[in-house]
Amino acid sequence: MNIIRLTKKTSEGLNEAFFNWLKNDILKINHEIIKNLHGSASLIIDLSNHIINSGGKRIRPLLTVACAKLCKYTGERHINLAAVIEFIHTATLLHDDVVDNSKKRRGKLTANLIWDNKSSILVGDYLLSKAFRMLIDDGSTLCLDVISKASLRISNGEVKQLASIRNFLTSESEYLDIINHKTAELFSAACTISGIISEVDSEKKNGLSEFGTFLGVAYQIIDDTLDYFSDSNTSGKSTGNDLKEGKMSLPLIICYKRSNKKEKKLIEHIIFKNPPTQNDFETIVKIMRKYNVKNDCIKKAGHFSTMAKDSLGVFSDSREKEKILSLVDFLTKRNT
Amino acid sequence: MNIIRLTKKTSEGLNEAFFNWLKNDILKINHEIIKNLHGSASLIIDLSNHIINSGGKRIRPLLTVACAKLCKYTGERHINLAAVIEFIHTATLLHDDVVDNSKKRRGKLTANLIWDNKSSILVGDYLLSKAFRMLIDDGSTLCLDVISKASLRISNGEVKQLASIRNFLTSESEYLDIINHKTAELFSAACTISGIISEVDSEKKNGLSEFGTFLGVAYQIIDDTLDYFSDSNTSGKSTGNDLKEGKMSLPLIICYKRSNKKEKKLIEHIIFKNPPTQNDFETIVKIMRKYNVKNDCIKKAGHFSTMAKDSLGVFSDSREKEKILSLVDFLTKRNT
Repeated sequence: MNIIRLTKKTSEGLNEAFFNWLKNDILKINHEIIKNLHGSASLIIDLSNHIINSGGKRIRPLLTVACAKLCKYTGERHINLAAVIEFIHTATLLHDDVVDNSKKRRGKLTANLIWDNKSSILVGDYLLSKAFRMLIDDGSTLCLDVISKASLRISNGEVKQLASIRNFLTSESEYLDIINHKTAELFSAACTISGIISEVDSEKKNGLSEFGTFLGVAYQIIDDTLDYFSDSNTSGKSTGNDLKEGKMSLPLIICYKRSNKKEKKLIEHIIFKNPPTQNDFETIVKIMRKYNVKNDCIKKAGHFSTMAKDSLGVFSDSREKEKILSLVDFLTKRNT
Repeated sequence: MNIIRLTKKTSEGLNEAFFNWLKNDILKINHEIIKNLHGSASLIIDLSNHIINSGGKRIRPLLTVACAKLCKYTGERHINLAAVIEFIHTATLLHDDVVDNSKKRRGKLTANLIWDNKSSILVGDYLLSKAFRMLIDDGSTLCLDVISKASLRISNGEVKQLASIRNFLTSESEYLDIINHKTAELFSAACTISGIISEVDSEKKNGLSEFGTFLGVAYQIIDDTLDYFSDSNTSGKSTGNDLKEGKMSLPLIICYKRSNKKEKKLIEHIIFKNPPTQNDFETIVKIMRKYNVKNDCIKKAGHFSTMAKDSLGVFSDSREKEKILSLVDFLTKRNT
């Protein structure tokens, strides 16, 4: 039976200074994850192992430990809570990959392809239930409240996203509402719970909550932009997935709105093809370039990234704050 | 937008006396379900509406209200908790139907066939998260503890069942372990929470917990037996699903163990065919009849059914107890 490896690899892609700062916590989170999966069916361990070790940035649990440091937290509960956040995120990824019929994530085969959709669905369910159990064992009603609300809103966002597939009436504000739910909620919860266990005042707690929300929105906009404009050789992120799935992400919404009649018809035709070809993808990217879509998406992400940084204004300057602010820049300026 | 209909139909299949006894509570549970889905994405309401109204016995939430009556509970929290149980069960059904690739449930098309697998996965996630939110709002740490443990064990059972598919080494005790997790846990939780909110002593709480467990095991054995021996015209339950899915259920385990070498080879051959034909199904049933499998499964269910009834020995005789005991017989002697 495999166990989750305690290597630096799990945080590849994070900037070096940030990684070094949180190195010990990363090891502790890995240990917590192993501990909590101990005794589960081997399929659960193997599959969780695969997805957790697949080279993701682990940004959400790291936000929990980084925010705990910002709040001068001295206990150990942030490690358990960071593992809870990672379990919820992993559960979401497992189900997302089935829903999106994904074949690759971060350049590696997705779990649903190596095992099967059944395993991904059931192990996802297990990890979500496990996260709730760990939260209940932690004993904080406030953390449970924040995370359970986030979990509900994440599913609501996923359902809304499903309803918006191939729907050209989807507006930018509907898109923002969807990513607020499906992405920003967990970012926000990951930050807020550190404020709760550190018992900071409500102003700071609100600051952390808003920081996570705005960072999550900025992060998702960049992610959606990279899906059209990333160089997969340098970023490890492949392009064209959102187009194949008919996702009405920000670049596509802006592109469609700015297109002329002929281009609009062409875009509609491509989106409804099953699946669109590499040529189709390049056609769309060409129209996007014509209308400066990439730069405008990055600007919009920048807007939310600035709001995220300003949300931490309630915290006085510190080494910790500086590290977190530099992480915001790193995450929202990656590969663009 | 559809809403969940307040009709008697939702409890079709339950014995008349039991239905009449709980009629008012059933209406209240329906109302609670509608209230809690209000404001959700329309897909969530439509899909939940379909599955909740698809003629199921609603046995799990009814156990909650029946046990509350047994405990002489006079409040209203049992209604909310019964809705929680129904939400968790519905979430499980939605995911199960995707995992099993089911086309029909209770004679009607499954949600994954009318909508799609994606919708079933995401709405299942939503309902599970919603159940946790409702539990947290109820405020009982003890109920949250019982139900979150059950939810974790249910997923563990589902994963174990997946690992046992087409595995002829699966023993009867492994089968019992699986159904203990995937079925009996929620039956047990549904009964236990009524003891908790009624604040009965721990002996009675344990009695309710064991009652639910044994009834769940008996119920699942009968369900698995009917999958080979039910008359779908009278029961609405179609046969042969477990064989198609390669599920190592009790009838198949017993049949395989009792078979001679030649029959064993034949059974293995059929199980690994994709999919087995109606003729294959009849061949298996014939071997089962030769070895008296049906009767022995019913006897085993009877063993657990008796244990369930004895678990209520800690409650003195009452009209409520009588109704519940008759329900046990109804559920474990249905169509056999």
